[in-house]
Amino acid sequence: MNRLLRVSALMLVACLLPAQEKEIVAMLQQSVADWNRADIPAFMRCYEDSADTTFVSKAVVKGTAAVRERYRTAYPTPVHMGKLTFSELVARVVSPGTAIVTGRFRLERTEKGGGPAQGIFTLVVRKSAAGWRIIHDHTTAL
Amino acid sequence: MNRLLRVSALMLVACLLPAQEKEIVAMLQQSVADWNRADIPAFMRCYEDSADTTFVSKAVVKGTAAVRERYRTAYPTPVHMGKLTFSELVARVVSPGTAIVTGRFRLERTEKGGGPAQGIFTLVVRKSAAGWRIIHDHTTAL
Repeated sequence: MNRLLRVSALMLVACLLPAQEKEIVAMLQQSVADWNRADIPAFMRCYEDSADTTFVSKAVVKGTAAVRERYRTAYPTPVHMGKLTFSELVARVVSPGTAIVTGRFRLERTEKGGGPAQGIFTLVVRKSAAGWRIIHDHTTAL
Repeated sequence: MNRLLRVSALMLVACLLPAQEKEIVAMLQQSVADWNRADIPAFMRCYEDSADTTFVSKAVVKGTAAVRERYRTAYPTPVHMGKLTFSELVARVVSPGTAIVTGRFRLERTEKGGGPAQGIFTLVVRKSAAGWRIIHDHTTAL
């Protein structure tokens, strides 16, 4: 599927979603665009800026500052960041202003950047004055 | 650490927690006790009985019936179920009646049962009339 078709498919999915799910998908689309410009400070805006924000992969990383540092260390250059796409995004509002999102990620990368990577994730997102933000991220590499 | 010490440590942790976190830990302790009696129907009571309940490991399994079936297939006998322990349990209430729990699991099993297993998990739990129940489980084998 070429890039245009993929974007169109994502927009079509977004059009069929209720308002809150649309907002959540838009926030994640923005985070993907920020990642693909290799702009980690902008990308990090998808996370709630809090000492309680958590990221789980092989261990629990606590606090947005520590999550940012993990990204900086694991993806030191645009070549390591590669091109990110999300698929199979499903958002479920579970209480007012709180939702669970599941999806898959794929990172297209050169061998020099670490090669391609993919996996599955759960995000817990919460609506704040600034909009929907990720308060917990559990990502499994597959 | 022997069993008595481990139980005492868990009770001590429980005593230091606020009321909601205590209730959540108690629900999870019950699920571990049910698992260790090889009683999957009782163990499954920790999940909200709903078509929306989700379990993620390498894929998304949707609905409590499908989650139950996954456990029955992956753990067909008490030998495959082994002895389960949880550690590093942290519960965080994120909105009224909704919490995120992170922790690690360890399964002591004979080679015949598949050998030992361990991993890290995120649970989203929600309080219902029946008490706290898991509405989403993301478990990564490590």
